[in-house]
Amino acid sequence: MPAFRTPEMAAVFSGESRLQRMLDFEAALARAEARAGIVPPEAAESIAACCRAELFDPGEIERDAALAGVPAIPVVKKLTALVAEAARGYVHWGATSQDVIDTGMVLQMRQGIDLLERDLVAVGSACAALAERHRATPMAGRTLLQHALPITFGLKAAHWLDLATRSMERLQGTRDDCLILQFGGAAGTLASLGNDGIRVSELLAKELGLPSAELPWHTDRDRIVETVCAVGIAAGAMSKIATDAVLLMQSEVGEVHESAAEGKGGSSTMPQKRNPVDGPAALASARLALGAVTVVLSGMTQEHERSVGAWQAEWRAVPDVFCFTAGAVRHVEVLVQGLEVDPVAMRRNLQSSRGRLLAESLSMKLAPYVGRHRAHEIVSEASARSLREDRDLAEVAAEEGRITSVMDREQIGRALDPSSYLGATDTFIDRALKRYQEITGLR
Amino acid sequence: MPAFRTPEMAAVFSGESRLQRMLDFEAALARAEARAGIVPPEAAESIAACCRAELFDPGEIERDAALAGVPAIPVVKKLTALVAEAARGYVHWGATSQDVIDTGMVLQMRQGIDLLERDLVAVGSACAALAERHRATPMAGRTLLQHALPITFGLKAAHWLDLATRSMERLQGTRDDCLILQFGGAAGTLASLGNDGIRVSELLAKELGLPSAELPWHTDRDRIVETVCAVGIAAGAMSKIATDAVLLMQSEVGEVHESAAEGKGGSSTMPQKRNPVDGPAALASARLALGAVTVVLSGMTQEHERSVGAWQAEWRAVPDVFCFTAGAVRHVEVLVQGLEVDPVAMRRNLQSSRGRLLAESLSMKLAPYVGRHRAHEIVSEASARSLREDRDLAEVAAEEGRITSVMDREQIGRALDPSSYLGATDTFIDRALKRYQEITGLR
Amino acid sequence: MPAFRTPEMAAVFSGESRLQRMLDFEAALARAEARAGIVPPEAAESIAACCRAELFDPGEIERDAALAGVPAIPVVKKLTALVAEAARGYVHWGATSQDVIDTGMVLQMRQGIDLLERDLVAVGSACAALAERHRATPMAGRTLLQHALPITFGLKAAHWLDLATRSMERLQGTRDDCLILQFGGAAGTLASLGNDGIRVSELLAKELGLPSAELPWHTDRDRIVETVCAVGIAAGAMSKIATDAVLLMQSEVGEVHESAAEGKGGSSTMPQKRNPVDGPAALASARLALGAVTVVLSGMTQEHERSVGAWQAEWRAVPDVFCFTAGAVRHVEVLVQGLEVDPVAMRRNLQSSRGRLLAESLSMKLAPYVGRHRAHEIVSEASARSLREDRDLAEVAAEEGRITSVMDREQIGRALDPSSYLGATDTFIDRALKRYQEITGLR
Amino acid sequence: MPAFRTPEMAAVFSGESRLQRMLDFEAALARAEARAGIVPPEAAESIAACCRAELFDPGEIERDAALAGVPAIPVVKKLTALVAEAARGYVHWGATSQDVIDTGMVLQMRQGIDLLERDLVAVGSACAALAERHRATPMAGRTLLQHALPITFGLKAAHWLDLATRSMERLQGTRDDCLILQFGGAAGTLASLGNDGIRVSELLAKELGLPSAELPWHTDRDRIVETVCAVGIAAGAMSKIATDAVLLMQSEVGEVHESAAEGKGGSSTMPQKRNPVDGPAALASARLALGAVTVVLSGMTQEHERSVGAWQAEWRAVPDVFCFTAGAVRHVEVLVQGLEVDPVAMRRNLQSSRGRLLAESLSMKLAPYVGRHRAHEIVSEASARSLREDRDLAEVAAEEGRITSVMDREQIGRALDPSSYLGATDTFIDRALKRYQEITGLR
Repeated sequence: MPAFRTPEMAAVFSGESRLQRMLDFEAALARAEARAGIVPPEAAESIAACCRAELFDPGEIERDAALAGVPAIPVVKKLTALVAEAARGYVHWGATSQDVIDTGMVLQMRQGIDLLERDLVAVGSACAALAERHRATPMAGRTLLQHALPITFGLKAAHWLDLATRSMERLQGTRDDCLILQFGGAAGTLASLGNDGIRVSELLAKELGLPSAELPWHTDRDRIVETVCAVGIAAGAMSKIATDAVLLMQSEVGEVHESAAEGKGGSSTMPQKRNPVDGPAALASARLALGAVTVVLSGMTQEHERSVGAWQAEWRAVPDVFCFTAGAVRHVEVLVQGLEVDPVAMRRNLQSSRGRLLAESLSMKLAPYVGRHRAHEIVSEASARSLREDRDLAEVAAEEGRITSVMDREQIGRALDPSSYLGATDTFIDRALKRYQEITGLR
Repeated sequence: MPAFRTPEMAAVFSGESRLQRMLDFEAALARAEARAGIVPPEAAESIAACCRAELFDPGEIERDAALAGVPAIPVVKKLTALVAEAARGYVHWGATSQDVIDTGMVLQMRQGIDLLERDLVAVGSACAALAERHRATPMAGRTLLQHALPITFGLKAAHWLDLATRSMERLQGTRDDCLILQFGGAAGTLASLGNDGIRVSELLAKELGLPSAELPWHTDRDRIVETVCAVGIAAGAMSKIATDAVLLMQSEVGEVHESAAEGKGGSSTMPQKRNPVDGPAALASARLALGAVTVVLSGMTQEHERSVGAWQAEWRAVPDVFCFTAGAVRHVEVLVQGLEVDPVAMRRNLQSSRGRLLAESLSMKLAPYVGRHRAHEIVSEASARSLREDRDLAEVAAEEGRITSVMDREQIGRALDPSSYLGATDTFIDRALKRYQEITGLR
Repeated sequence: MPAFRTPEMAAVFSGESRLQRMLDFEAALARAEARAGIVPPEAAESIAACCRAELFDPGEIERDAALAGVPAIPVVKKLTALVAEAARGYVHWGATSQDVIDTGMVLQMRQGIDLLERDLVAVGSACAALAERHRATPMAGRTLLQHALPITFGLKAAHWLDLATRSMERLQGTRDDCLILQFGGAAGTLASLGNDGIRVSELLAKELGLPSAELPWHTDRDRIVETVCAVGIAAGAMSKIATDAVLLMQSEVGEVHESAAEGKGGSSTMPQKRNPVDGPAALASARLALGAVTVVLSGMTQEHERSVGAWQAEWRAVPDVFCFTAGAVRHVEVLVQGLEVDPVAMRRNLQSSRGRLLAESLSMKLAPYVGRHRAHEIVSEASARSLREDRDLAEVAAEEGRITSVMDREQIGRALDPSSYLGATDTFIDRALKRYQEITGLR
Repeated sequence: MPAFRTPEMAAVFSGESRLQRMLDFEAALARAEARAGIVPPEAAESIAACCRAELFDPGEIERDAALAGVPAIPVVKKLTALVAEAARGYVHWGATSQDVIDTGMVLQMRQGIDLLERDLVAVGSACAALAERHRATPMAGRTLLQHALPITFGLKAAHWLDLATRSMERLQGTRDDCLILQFGGAAGTLASLGNDGIRVSELLAKELGLPSAELPWHTDRDRIVETVCAVGIAAGAMSKIATDAVLLMQSEVGEVHESAAEGKGGSSTMPQKRNPVDGPAALASARLALGAVTVVLSGMTQEHERSVGAWQAEWRAVPDVFCFTAGAVRHVEVLVQGLEVDPVAMRRNLQSSRGRLLAESLSMKLAPYVGRHRAHEIVSEASARSLREDRDLAEVAAEEGRITSVMDREQIGRALDPSSYLGATDTFIDRALKRYQEITGLR
């Protein structure tokens, strides 16, 4: 069964990783409190030394967590049992379950963002290569799935690139603004730390390399939702790329193909088939990611100082958003990196409507002589005739007195050459490339 | 980490089960085709004998499925390699990947429905017991979270029961109408079976104990969506029960409690706490189930004869809907079965508004004398005074001439007794119990 | 701006209709209570006579409803003011806001279901005509947007028909099971009616022509959700049809076109364009409908005896589900009724892969001689060569000794004729037609 | 019927406003092109002069838009008919429908963001006042709806404030990054403007006061989705506030009340009731807003250079997100501004658990003597006894030798005084106030 997720992201959000990130919090807390003079240094070291996931029995933790309703409780209990006698009283000091679970999840999300960015850079790099290589490869621009005007495949790839670049930027933004320490104690007052709460909070943030929150945010989930939305938008961006690709791969279009590989894309019954694989997998992954986004999005309604359900749903939905988005990004990465582009097919499709795709170009060239409105009418009639009689628009136009009275055959021909009607395509491609390079710092 | 799913349902939708259900299809297909005289009986037996998941390497199947984009291909390939030389040409005869994957999923869903029904019967049974035991236990009915009129806890439990009963009925309906054989071959025409298609289809349905479809339904997903909605509605029904329970467990309300158990519902820092565990877990499970429902619901837009993404997303989303709903049902089952009900607290809360909760009763008793509109006004004023002066409504009413001119103190007292103002409560409880018994065939 | 809804459905869910349906409830309640001997007949008649929306100022009702938080309150107040002095005390007797609002909405939904069914019959009728007319019109079956095997356009239309038929059936089911009277009084006990509650409830149901509920269902929303899901599934079914249509309309495919009309589907700049209009509008409508479904679906978590938010959201979301689904159905109705089918284009596309689409057919015909597995290999190689050398598969096959040793040129030709490889297509079309006729009672 | 939207926001997204914003685009385009020397100045002035919505028949535009499938076409056609003969050829020059529709929508969204920010400032201002006034008003902090530790109502209000502040910030961010000019011509190349495309684009952006896009973004919808998510998060933030409020208003809690007003929050049958109105309305509005967010979020999968459905769905879903969010913000504004806070009730509830709420405080004070783990055990037992015997924890603790051996009665008393156990509450309140002032530039 295709997993719709990457092994790397699955590892970041595995049970063991989750446990380790929670233990990272406990270790950092002990150290921060040692620095603040609250916990004896040797107790802190004993605690920190025991904060290793391999010392815990995952099955036991999971069973006890299910019973307790919250994974922090068995972890703290087991950790307390592991540390030196004298350190026992200092484990988890001043913190609450939500502190360790939320901060642990934030640490996982930070790793997840790193992975997504790395893969988005790869998507971007592959798109950038396509944008450069096919800068001048004309193809049909399609609006409402109908031929509209010519574009180049490089321009299409530049849009894909731009989506990837902006997805990176957006994720970078959330890393700084949203992925911050959670630390408030049982009801968000840090009461059990007396006057040391703020200082411990700052030291703890430093230990973990996380920004410190102005206020604990136990039931203020907007930053989590913002991050999850940014991730989901990346999934959505990938699904746009995959949509274009599967449409271009259609039997009747055939302008691109996924790379072939032994065992890839065959049919269980039809010997001649070469099916898209990464396209559909990216689209499925993105659908799954967005489903999980809605769970988090609808879960902001959290009661008082800790929620009865919406928070707990995040424990599963947030990992799902990251994992499925990673799947979408990876499948698009493979798709774009291996994409076989067929410029001949692009040109053939472009010409299949006998030049009518360039009707606007002709209309625009005619407009200075007869006005835009009138030009539109004349060319519209010529197009209709070209369609009706199945003849080249160039031929039909050359018989139309209202056109030939102001344009000669060569002018008509130039007006109907796709390469002559690409407007700012080059500039747009350059801009997309430049922006990608700025964001990634490459070159 | 709480799993928000049951082990039993997770087993039904495990990778191995999925593989086995696909193999069940292949075995049944071979047998059906043997019966139809298309496949030699010994070939069919060789195929059927190899259709055992333990003969397959799950890791290998998964890797090849990811590459092929579809799990059926490596399964068919491996199965072909396993069977006797002479049977090789008959494996998967006339079927397509979608036939085996969809039918396999239908078989899993049928098992899933059975599990859900079993657990819903248990929920219903526990609710029925509460409804009978607390048939006459008065408590505040609450609208908009405000005391409205008295009800009994038995009536509340009867509503929970009714939700469970109707959830069972709805699931039973989908088993018959929606969980049917998928069999159409590569493009849904059964072309490769020539004139035998329909007959094989019927024999195959019989082998699998599934209703036969009038038409293959490769991209007609409405039955899958209907089933998934019915399951999701069961999750939603559970979340209504869990919501009531966590609200009744609030510190200030304290009318019910989850059963206590060693290690259950404690706090990592607060020694006095007794937190709800199954309530929040049920609510989280239901949220996750509904998130997965939206993935399936938005995936009906499937292209031509096989979809590029929406279908593939079902492979993950459908199991999620079942597994998380199973989690919601199970947590509610535990919650309701162990529910500790506190009739004293119920009565205390009922009386906390000094009889104002029965204002409507008084108003209704007064209405025959002064008209409903006028009675509403008089009682409204008395209630306001009772609130303002923090006195029993009975006392205030006894001082109100417009009331005492037509009702004596005893009549006022009766009008303000919760047990006297329960209307059709008994009938409603009886009806809910009867319906449950009819559906489950108990008693 | 396209409305994505039909005027008829918008009228059913207009503010005035909503008001009138609430008044229908109040009138029926008064009559039922008169029959039960609770309300004097002349009072009931006075009330019923005033239950006409045109007697109310919609702006005033809306303003007061916003203030009261619930529309029933100003309606009851205003109605009380309108009726004869002697009837005033009997208005709304025994009912609560939720009774009148929910029953009013149920009455609207019943009208909405009728409208949807009517339009679905029209969709079905148009699909049935296509299915019959193009029963034998071969076209490419497409899986994963790749040519798979031939089907006929009639078969595709039969699937569309089947979706429409099943949508009707599903809606009919909800009319009987889900659209029932809501009547419970302030907390669902009918307390204010004393011993008459059940009897009034039955008389009221009869007055309104609605099934009576076993229990009031104030916060048991599963039937509403089930109805809304059934409507949403109809929207999803329409979006499958529209998806097929817009894909078939693509410039490179050109197998169908939306009917042309003055002012329809043009471009603001491109004279040659003939854009799909009803297809995209149906798809947009369905997306909007499904968005509203999720609001209702996630709203089952309703607190105690009346909800603080989820119920209120239904007042808007339920009408949206109906209105946007009506839009989807209507746009598909127009789309299918006017669909221009181009069998020549279908055949051209079918042949564009030089017979490779029929590779399975050849493989199946070859299999009896060499085994299915071996046949698949041989034909696979021939297909690859046909693709590589851009030659007809028939030609290549005729040069392949492993084929020609058992099949002659004519047999090869027959194996590669689309019309000879349609399997059970005719039967499937017949079944879809028959089912539609059964459901609609036509013919 | 409550509208769940504000009149101001409804006006921004009305049909007439939409038309006017589209006309604003056309006027600005003509002027920009005049500046670029493409359109004669007098033609540009004639066009600009006709770009007034009141010159158009809204019914006619709507009908023609429904037929054309896109509102730009009838607008351009009608505008062309209105302008001076000589200007006719210059209307809409170089633009496509998507340019005018998207830019028009961006202009509406910008106005919408302004309105939301204004109302969020008001929400923030009311929350800030509560935070200051109730800085030291103790109340129960509640986790999982159970009493946890004391907080102050000021701290709760500070969290509400912080949510409002961050919602403003997030909206401000989208105004700069996401609300930008759309201008690409028929296929996104600006081909019809030849070499002038980029320059016209920049002049046009300046005319409209919008940032210029690096590339046209016809089917790159990530910025729209980002904006819509930011708006939806604001709705979600409001629903958190409303949730807290309706929970605090419960009959058994009674710590806050919505402001009373004639005709507000009554019951149609129960004279004593004082229902929440703005709370439920805010919650309903937020649910509706989030439903519309999912429509936009799932609509990123847009085909090639213009989408067949997902884009069109935005025309309705984007306004819905803004309108319903405005409703949520406005209802919370009214709610918070008029909130009646009852410090006596807060203290009463706080003390209802006989000091057990301060168990952690006692445990923490005891920990330095006996270790945290041991202290937790001792206090846990004392709490259990206090609960079992229904006595003050102070009393029970004073009888517990393991406590009294290290703490005297006064120390125990101080440990159990809520005001002494508020930790960093003051600092957190200050920070929330400061951040609000920074963002709003007040004081």
